[in-house]
Amino acid sequence: MALDRLIEAIVEKQNPTVAGLDPKLDYIPAYIREASYEKYGKTLEGAADALLTFNKGLIDALYDIVPAVKPQCAYYEMYGWPGVKALHDTIAYAKEKGLFVITDGKRNDIGATMTAYAAAHLGQVPVEGELVSPFGADALTVNGYLGSDGITPLLTVCREQDTGIFVLVKTSNPSSGELQDRLLDDGKTLYAAMGDRCEQWGGQLPGKYGYSGVGAVVGATYPAQLQEMRKAAPHTFFLVPGYGAQGGAADDVAPGFDEKGLGAIVNSSRGIMCAWQKAGQKTGQDGKNYGQAAREEAIRMRDAIVARIGKISL
Amino acid sequence: MALDRLIEAIVEKQNPTVAGLDPKLDYIPAYIREASYEKYGKTLEGAADALLTFNKGLIDALYDIVPAVKPQCAYYEMYGWPGVKALHDTIAYAKEKGLFVITDGKRNDIGATMTAYAAAHLGQVPVEGELVSPFGADALTVNGYLGSDGITPLLTVCREQDTGIFVLVKTSNPSSGELQDRLLDDGKTLYAAMGDRCEQWGGQLPGKYGYSGVGAVVGATYPAQLQEMRKAAPHTFFLVPGYGAQGGAADDVAPGFDEKGLGAIVNSSRGIMCAWQKAGQKTGQDGKNYGQAAREEAIRMRDAIVARIGKISL
Repeated sequence: MALDRLIEAIVEKQNPTVAGLDPKLDYIPAYIREASYEKYGKTLEGAADALLTFNKGLIDALYDIVPAVKPQCAYYEMYGWPGVKALHDTIAYAKEKGLFVITDGKRNDIGATMTAYAAAHLGQVPVEGELVSPFGADALTVNGYLGSDGITPLLTVCREQDTGIFVLVKTSNPSSGELQDRLLDDGKTLYAAMGDRCEQWGGQLPGKYGYSGVGAVVGATYPAQLQEMRKAAPHTFFLVPGYGAQGGAADDVAPGFDEKGLGAIVNSSRGIMCAWQKAGQKTGQDGKNYGQAAREEAIRMRDAIVARIGKISL
Repeated sequence: MALDRLIEAIVEKQNPTVAGLDPKLDYIPAYIREASYEKYGKTLEGAADALLTFNKGLIDALYDIVPAVKPQCAYYEMYGWPGVKALHDTIAYAKEKGLFVITDGKRNDIGATMTAYAAAHLGQVPVEGELVSPFGADALTVNGYLGSDGITPLLTVCREQDTGIFVLVKTSNPSSGELQDRLLDDGKTLYAAMGDRCEQWGGQLPGKYGYSGVGAVVGATYPAQLQEMRKAAPHTFFLVPGYGAQGGAADDVAPGFDEKGLGAIVNSSRGIMCAWQKAGQKTGQDGKNYGQAAREEAIRMRDAIVARIGKISL
């Protein structure tokens, strides 16, 4: 089961964090951008080439210390189909380096259409009898607003392809409560109801270590809710955004973990990707050190969280 | 305002329907697929070329009678980045033919990431000072589970780029009620609460004809809810899926319209795209007539709905 593989990688590397790969041109050192424009012009192709080069440098700097990367689809779609090709190539490169890849797409639809998304991101597609893997991630973030018709098509593909999903439960943004915190007529919040669904859906993808193949997104910016959901959804592994740039700290994410240090993986995107810009204030900011700066920041984040939660064991 | 343009096109063509472009290889006549494989092999590139050729034929057959097309992202992502390129090329071709394009992506995220999706699908992206339009749709379907942080970034782009959005409110699938029909503590359903949000968000994008630039998705398969929401969200234009293949009929969609015949646009995807397969049982099924069959089905659908709602006027 896919999240078992993620858990094993977390334990092996003693690192419950994932590096978000959300590249914007603004985050990419000039020397990389210029080399790409040299080859492809100041076009979407040029931008996409810069994205991929930047990502590969990050992956090279991180793959032996982080268990997973999380590319965010929006930043690739923003550069059109060449950007989407860079997403594909980034996923392929990360998997080559042994990383677990969570595509952050928050996809949602129903029936045959959800099956198409599942095949696109987590499975294979037949082209006249030949099976092709369009994007090939290990897991995908999804939005459960449409109910089981939007999730069960994924479970079939996840079972067949050893892949997993993370369902949005309580997101990290300030206005997440507008709908997610609304109380339902049984006194539960909407996010708690979504958490219950995750436990139910997860029953179809049981794992070896107590966590199913249906994870949940629960933000670092709401530690009380993280604690509540850790208890309410004991078989649901959490993907925790909101650390660093969004304000979450090690103390805030700690309630997402169980007593073995399992149960959650914490994401940082800008904190890691843009570490060179912060560091550059000292070193001249040409960005040639961006991989090293990312690595140092990833280590700082790992150490801060592990200091708080202790040794991670199966 | 973008939905004003859609409304004007609906009135001009006296047709409140949109043709869904959700192409799968199974829906595409063999002679098209074979020509594409000849050029690109039995690869994702070959599949994507077949998708694009098929779509162009549909658009050629439909552009003078339907006001809009709705490509569904999942079916393009399913064929990898070449499929996503076919999405881009399909949108460009449809716009060339004067059609209003609704990209059905059900995208959702927050802040800078939602801005990236908005730029990708509804706006422009700077590449070293040059503005490029990555996909260039007129409207995008979105999921509001994350609250205002997920929607307001879109509103800015919509205002600047004359584009619009449709927020999922009550979807057409059997299990849509699992969460959407849950009663909140004020006695309203979740979908009604989402409808209220649409009215609020729409206040920032007012239109000429009483409807804002923030539309809502409300399924044809729930006519009572469609009627309820037409009353509860009087400034919100509805995109109505579920007609035809999913079981909705003209009587079911009628409650979505106001007394002028405005207020809704009804989608049919498989009914139109696959009309040739149904017709082919008579004609030998080589599919060369697929455009004509789609046109006849689109006319049948238009006539059935207009017979029910009457002349559409501004």
